[in-house]
Amino acid sequence: MDRQLHGGDTYGHPSALDFSSNTSPLGLPESVQKALAGSVGDWDGYPDPLCRDLTAAIAAADGVPAAWVHCGNGAADLIFRVAQALKPRRALTLAPTFSEYEYALAAAGCETAFHPLHEKDNFALTDTILGKLSPALDLVMLCNPNNPTGQPVDGELLRRILKKCADCKITLLVDECFVPFLDEPEAHTLKGELAAHKNLIVLRAFTKLYAMAGLRLGYLLCANPETIEAVCACEPPWNVSLPAQTAGIAALADGEYVSRVREVVKAERKYLAGELQKLGLRVLGSRANYLFFKCNACRDLDALLEQRGILIRPCGNFRGLDERFYRAAVKTHAQNERLVEALTEILKGA
Amino acid sequence: MDRQLHGGDTYGHPSALDFSSNTSPLGLPESVQKALAGSVGDWDGYPDPLCRDLTAAIAAADGVPAAWVHCGNGAADLIFRVAQALKPRRALTLAPTFSEYEYALAAAGCETAFHPLHEKDNFALTDTILGKLSPALDLVMLCNPNNPTGQPVDGELLRRILKKCADCKITLLVDECFVPFLDEPEAHTLKGELAAHKNLIVLRAFTKLYAMAGLRLGYLLCANPETIEAVCACEPPWNVSLPAQTAGIAALADGEYVSRVREVVKAERKYLAGELQKLGLRVLGSRANYLFFKCNACRDLDALLEQRGILIRPCGNFRGLDERFYRAAVKTHAQNERLVEALTEILKGA
Repeated sequence: MDRQLHGGDTYGHPSALDFSSNTSPLGLPESVQKALAGSVGDWDGYPDPLCRDLTAAIAAADGVPAAWVHCGNGAADLIFRVAQALKPRRALTLAPTFSEYEYALAAAGCETAFHPLHEKDNFALTDTILGKLSPALDLVMLCNPNNPTGQPVDGELLRRILKKCADCKITLLVDECFVPFLDEPEAHTLKGELAAHKNLIVLRAFTKLYAMAGLRLGYLLCANPETIEAVCACEPPWNVSLPAQTAGIAALADGEYVSRVREVVKAERKYLAGELQKLGLRVLGSRANYLFFKCNACRDLDALLEQRGILIRPCGNFRGLDERFYRAAVKTHAQNERLVEALTEILKGA
Repeated sequence: MDRQLHGGDTYGHPSALDFSSNTSPLGLPESVQKALAGSVGDWDGYPDPLCRDLTAAIAAADGVPAAWVHCGNGAADLIFRVAQALKPRRALTLAPTFSEYEYALAAAGCETAFHPLHEKDNFALTDTILGKLSPALDLVMLCNPNNPTGQPVDGELLRRILKKCADCKITLLVDECFVPFLDEPEAHTLKGELAAHKNLIVLRAFTKLYAMAGLRLGYLLCANPETIEAVCACEPPWNVSLPAQTAGIAALADGEYVSRVREVVKAERKYLAGELQKLGLRVLGSRANYLFFKCNACRDLDALLEQRGILIRPCGNFRGLDERFYRAAVKTHAQNERLVEALTEILKGA
């Protein structure tokens, strides 16, 4: 199993304009930067192993009891810990989707099946998945909206999946890292189902919404204390760094930043999708803070853009996709214009 | 299994003088603070998953090829990853020792045996451990110098253990987090044995030497590429945060800080051990940056010190110890004097 390269290898391309990672176009909030710069001198001490202040802030923001919140060293790390903690024998995830589910399940010795998404459905999840849910499964990992397709799961279908998982005693992990970028986040989150469904784990990250990728902070929400205890048993006590805890607390206090991000992403997503379509690219998914598109008439769009100092995410190494598919983040207007110019140059030979 | 509380819960005691965690008495180096404060604005980007610059700096500092270096989110996290990666069925560690070995092995489903250390030997490891090493074991985890006892393993014995592990096809993980505080670090490290012993993993941390506990940065050294690959497969790609990578690079460039730490620790260890002995306490181990001692005539020394605003580490919850044993870090002279004064007050009723 060759491990998939992700977007965002800006270290190999230090000066490039990066559309390959899906973080907030507005960068790390000023309020978070200020909180970090002001606390550097305290980082000689151990982090609070219980993340007490951060957990309380998340619980208040998400409207859940603090006991349901468990913080980790980024959402990706929590995917590995959940897999190790639950020791599933058989799991189901999607194809295409974020590849770390597969790697985390493999590391835990779990046999993983992949439910295929189809281009005829614009890669949206359909109710055919319900037929795959049976007591033979222990765990289902879903990404909503899905990465790289940018497609959210229909709300009614999601609740049917959750119910069938509960009936079959399957744990359902729903990765909601990109939910805050959707137009109606509250209509898409399963947070409201946690109390009634002990088999549900909702995964969230600070990485994307607050452009905190370098700091590593994610959390899970789960109303089953046994699940949280099992995850804790697979982690060292000081897994969440002090910079991450400090940044998370400051970010949650900055509601104004979130409003601005959502406004920019909404407007720019529309602009960028429109321009890409004008260039003959087929935009398949554009509901989150990234666009998923296909180029039938071209090859190596990522390499051609890289020559022009721009990184996008080629999707040929996702299960179920090929080299005609790409993903690009929605960034600021000036940055999006640069992408459109470069694409015009490549596709129209201008 | 009730998970052991460690030292350093300064979050429950925010204003206390903390001798319960074993980090450098000089705090986070100025050079590291400066590097961190100057890079806050960059932390919106993902960390380099390959830790390229940091790995190169560690390789140069430790005199090993970069391919032997693997960085993690603190040494404690690497203990969990190694356990998950190697999937040992049977492991051996010491009693008493750092408790995270036991928890990491349990999380990996491994059966763990505990080789007891004895007070008659001042809790130093003796060659009786050699009789426990057999092909029935897959993994041995040793802490050198041991925590909480402060006792290094005799160099000749350590090499005999390594050789017998190699003969029995046992992986030997030696946690050298406290080696830099010993008087002759180069005489105690097994780094020089890596090339000849593919079964050897040396674990190191920035936490202790550079007082970087809040930042989470540790690394392992191993000449076996399969071991490093297996560890990588159990981790998300961005496991080491940008602040940790930035801090590690800056720390390695600050040789002057290390000299000062070693000087202070050497002088203060002698001072503090002498004063504790004058007070009738039995100092059993004093070779690292902490003292391990026993109070036959008293109980609840930690609680009595806590009433005076000082935290030490009660050792009653380590396997093989009881409530007469304590650990205290060696700190600056003024801080050590405060500890001695408080102990004098308690023990002499002064």
